[in-house]
Amino acid sequence: MSRRSVRTERRLFLADGPKAVEGALSVDGCVVEVYATPTAVEQHADLLAGATVTVVDDRALASLSDAVSPAGLVALCRHVDAPLARVLDVSARLLAICADVRDPGNAGNVIRTADAAGADAVVLAGRSVDAYNPKTVRSTVGSLFHLPLALEPDPAAAVRAAQQRGLTVLAADGAGEVDLFDADLSGPTAWLFGNEAWGLPDELAALADHRVAIPIHGRAESLNLSTAAAVCLYASARAQRG
Amino acid sequence: MSRRSVRTERRLFLADGPKAVEGALSVDGCVVEVYATPTAVEQHADLLAGATVTVVDDRALASLSDAVSPAGLVALCRHVDAPLARVLDVSARLLAICADVRDPGNAGNVIRTADAAGADAVVLAGRSVDAYNPKTVRSTVGSLFHLPLALEPDPAAAVRAAQQRGLTVLAADGAGEVDLFDADLSGPTAWLFGNEAWGLPDELAALADHRVAIPIHGRAESLNLSTAAAVCLYASARAQRG
Repeated sequence: MSRRSVRTERRLFLADGPKAVEGALSVDGCVVEVYATPTAVEQHADLLAGATVTVVDDRALASLSDAVSPAGLVALCRHVDAPLARVLDVSARLLAICADVRDPGNAGNVIRTADAAGADAVVLAGRSVDAYNPKTVRSTVGSLFHLPLALEPDPAAAVRAAQQRGLTVLAADGAGEVDLFDADLSGPTAWLFGNEAWGLPDELAALADHRVAIPIHGRAESLNLSTAAAVCLYASARAQRG
Repeated sequence: MSRRSVRTERRLFLADGPKAVEGALSVDGCVVEVYATPTAVEQHADLLAGATVTVVDDRALASLSDAVSPAGLVALCRHVDAPLARVLDVSARLLAICADVRDPGNAGNVIRTADAAGADAVVLAGRSVDAYNPKTVRSTVGSLFHLPLALEPDPAAAVRAAQQRGLTVLAADGAGEVDLFDADLSGPTAWLFGNEAWGLPDELAALADHRVAIPIHGRAESLNLSTAAAVCLYASARAQRG
């Protein structure tokens, strides 16, 4: 059975390296089994206390791990996403919705940044990259396990659900009518981010309550997607917590 | 002669795609020659007005270009970096100094973000990745040509030079003693960013005027380097221009 079929058919995936394994072990019922080399078992004894660990040799572990320099530690995990309704069924004040984000590094980095900025959840919507792609998982550096994640095929449904829960939806849009640093960001906010290359489709951006632009002071035409997300999420965190 | 030897021995490099070629053409004396397919010549006639263009077929162009989907347009360019003293010999108010940044995507993204945030220059210091690496160039999306760039082997020399020009040097440091959003960022500032994996060496961080931490509200341990740079540079832009 190929690794891909394990991921999609049985809703299992691999978390690679100590930070990811530590994150996975912090989620109840997530880890099926940890595989570790004898060296890693010694080195990460604290992290692995209480976990079911299968000791394997370097070669067996390398066959499981995609990383260039595997740390000798991999966890086989159950998918961690939850239905949109449950992810939103909290007193969420800061949310990141990604529509059609295609690059695994960008998607993972948005999840990591949302975690750092104290967001309540992330929604990967539309035809976004597989959240369990090894590159996505690695780019989250453990944050995949730190905050609720929903996968929603219809981005418009995610926008409407957020609005119904009382969140103001702000579309990050270089052509937006509001300047990020003029916007009132103190209330509960869901940020809507589009695709790396073509941004947000007009009809989706139109569903948002406002379209917000990060000011460009130099000659760059735009910002990288996960960079833009970071500037927006931290502007919200600052306004909400200031 | 391999492409690498062209890059290092003759201080030439390739700028790939319309945004990069447009940027290169905006810098006096930068472009040696533009190579374009007949289709690209037609499609980008405005951009190429006045430029010396050699028309080549798709196959010849593909042999020059590293991009997955080449746009049919490449410029052979002279290196654009300037000596540190000249880069600083302006009334600089916002500077980004990268020490030992190793990932081409991160370095390029910092240059792009610095451009967007209105920074006056970027310094790639220490053993940072080659600024003319095709991946670095591509990640800047043209910004490599938009603001002054210096390459300085000694990061401490870059810090001292910035201080001598009256800039306050702030080291971005997760363990820093000042919270980014409590810091007074209104004056002329040089941000100092470290390596992706190990951050800034203590002795280099100690040379900065302050060590500044981006607040982490969730469970992430840190931010991606270019993400952190974006949050810092935009916090400065907002304070300086607010």
